[in-house]
Amino acid sequence: MNSIELPPAADFHVHLRDGSMMETVVPTIRSGGVSLVYVMPNLVPPITTIEQALSYHSKLVSLDNSVNYLMTLYLTPEITPSVIAKAADTNVIFGVKSYPKGLTTNSEGGVVSYTEFYPVFAAMEEHDMVLNLHGESPSSETTTVLNAEETFLPTLFDLHEKFPKLRIVLEHCTTAAAVEAVKKCGPTVAATITAHHLYLTIDQWADNPHCFCKPVAKLPSDRAALVEAATSGDPKFFLGTDSAPHPKSAKVGTRTGKTAAGVFTQPYAMQYVATAFDKVGKVDKLKGFACDFGRAFYKIKEKGLEGNYKSGAIVLSKEPGVIVVEEIGQGEGVIVPFHAGEKIWGLEWRT
Amino acid sequence: MNSIELPPAADFHVHLRDGSMMETVVPTIRSGGVSLVYVMPNLVPPITTIEQALSYHSKLVSLDNSVNYLMTLYLTPEITPSVIAKAADTNVIFGVKSYPKGLTTNSEGGVVSYTEFYPVFAAMEEHDMVLNLHGESPSSETTTVLNAEETFLPTLFDLHEKFPKLRIVLEHCTTAAAVEAVKKCGPTVAATITAHHLYLTIDQWADNPHCFCKPVAKLPSDRAALVEAATSGDPKFFLGTDSAPHPKSAKVGTRTGKTAAGVFTQPYAMQYVATAFDKVGKVDKLKGFACDFGRAFYKIKEKGLEGNYKSGAIVLSKEPGVIVVEEIGQGEGVIVPFHAGEKIWGLEWRT
Repeated sequence: MNSIELPPAADFHVHLRDGSMMETVVPTIRSGGVSLVYVMPNLVPPITTIEQALSYHSKLVSLDNSVNYLMTLYLTPEITPSVIAKAADTNVIFGVKSYPKGLTTNSEGGVVSYTEFYPVFAAMEEHDMVLNLHGESPSSETTTVLNAEETFLPTLFDLHEKFPKLRIVLEHCTTAAAVEAVKKCGPTVAATITAHHLYLTIDQWADNPHCFCKPVAKLPSDRAALVEAATSGDPKFFLGTDSAPHPKSAKVGTRTGKTAAGVFTQPYAMQYVATAFDKVGKVDKLKGFACDFGRAFYKIKEKGLEGNYKSGAIVLSKEPGVIVVEEIGQGEGVIVPFHAGEKIWGLEWRT
Repeated sequence: MNSIELPPAADFHVHLRDGSMMETVVPTIRSGGVSLVYVMPNLVPPITTIEQALSYHSKLVSLDNSVNYLMTLYLTPEITPSVIAKAADTNVIFGVKSYPKGLTTNSEGGVVSYTEFYPVFAAMEEHDMVLNLHGESPSSETTTVLNAEETFLPTLFDLHEKFPKLRIVLEHCTTAAAVEAVKKCGPTVAATITAHHLYLTIDQWADNPHCFCKPVAKLPSDRAALVEAATSGDPKFFLGTDSAPHPKSAKVGTRTGKTAAGVFTQPYAMQYVATAFDKVGKVDKLKGFACDFGRAFYKIKEKGLEGNYKSGAIVLSKEPGVIVVEEIGQGEGVIVPFHAGEKIWGLEWRT
């Protein structure tokens, strides 16, 4: 299949930042074929109150009101059961994101122990909100970036057992072990898979800061498991790009040499995914993975937020395809997209 | 032990480059407490003839004649048994370095198959020359930078079995598996251990180009095995820093974002090692690892190249110690040393 028409895609894990970076990134959402985004709350400071979330939502809408923005709160002690009850009423805030402390960009205020949040999880279960897990354990003498996800999986099982009706998304899963764990859980547990983890293994990011992200891409066998899960038609696995823009200067050329974690895929989200699916002859599985399964898990239709789902369509084509631009944005905010300079599928909106 | 006096150290794996980079690096050898270096041949073009090796040797001597430079040839089809016989007579060329094709800096002309070089290895055995192995397998669907060394070990065993009298050094070993393999072999097989692999795991280089090298640093358990081997007093393990200077611009800030592989430790070689040994209370094992075992394996005394071994001494002291400078060299050739800005043991030459 060299071309396919689809409903607009839904991307259930994006970083849109704020300030000038937000102004650069938000206009690229639709160019990636996406009409609905689930917006991560790890700003500086993080989005921990309903007011902040609504204010952030308004800014995003003012930049592009053709996109549906679903908001999530950053799990901290400020998030109480009563906050959950109010958040559920907004019809804008759909979940709560848990970051283990210190594990990725702007996660210094993250979670040390999950048990202290059990009352919050119970309230989320009651109000049918989604728990978004950054599923990695902190590094230690036995845990590195390589097995940080696998060592987190017992926590996933534990939370699912204690809160079986709580909808949980294991975000940006990167290992065969995580895929198996999500399959083993009941239907309230799902996982997002990014576009870039359909491509990368450790060998690609070892010497390339633009391919370095958390969780890091792992082994060829892990990548194979992710491609298999994404193209399987199993509704537990859907698209969440974890597109994470960083200024080029934070990726390369910093004084300390430290590389910010994150891969920027927003402007070509569906093009990357289509290209990866095409490689394994599974373009026919794109609709479920990128359009339907996430919306169903988040109950988008029931909640009256179907949005642009029927108001347009996207057409993805292998030829002529498109060459990924070298840079996006200007000056100090310039961002290098994933696979800059490489050829991927093309995308057009049907108007 | 907070201070120790030692003979000058010997560093059995260094990259001194050529041109202006060579002029920057060679004067730093002695500041690292080293009077003898085993010089890698991966220049552009590589050192594949005796004439090239002798010419390179002369340039090095002219930059600092207080250092003994031991030369090695780059294994290519140009290296024949008759070249080996002549090289052995130079008393300057001590070995031949084998790079698997494409695996690290300037290795495009490297080895694809070892069997074609069996006549060369037989000649090396006869003329008592050393084979230096870059011990990594190329990446494939099952091999990544993580297991590239472990998957190479059968080749080490194979070469050792076929050429039991051939002295072989498994260069810059990075895994517990490699340490065990070297121990299992007879006394003709040894390994070098770098300074930086006594410190690093994957978590340190994942987001820091200045800590990225080949072979990559691996798990905490591998680092522990290297520290244990280096400080064990086992003469099969000795210092080879693999100090590998790259311009800062090749480590960070390149257009493509690709990071050159290599950690630069030359100017503080023994200070890094002393600091690492001190952490595990094994400063008393420094002399064997950094001064004696390598010289013994290479038969330096027998070959009349004892050099500065008795003509001076170095004193390593925990206090006041030294802060690693941020950069070495100037302009486009500026190099960032390992652990820039951090405090390590101090070093003085006793005159």
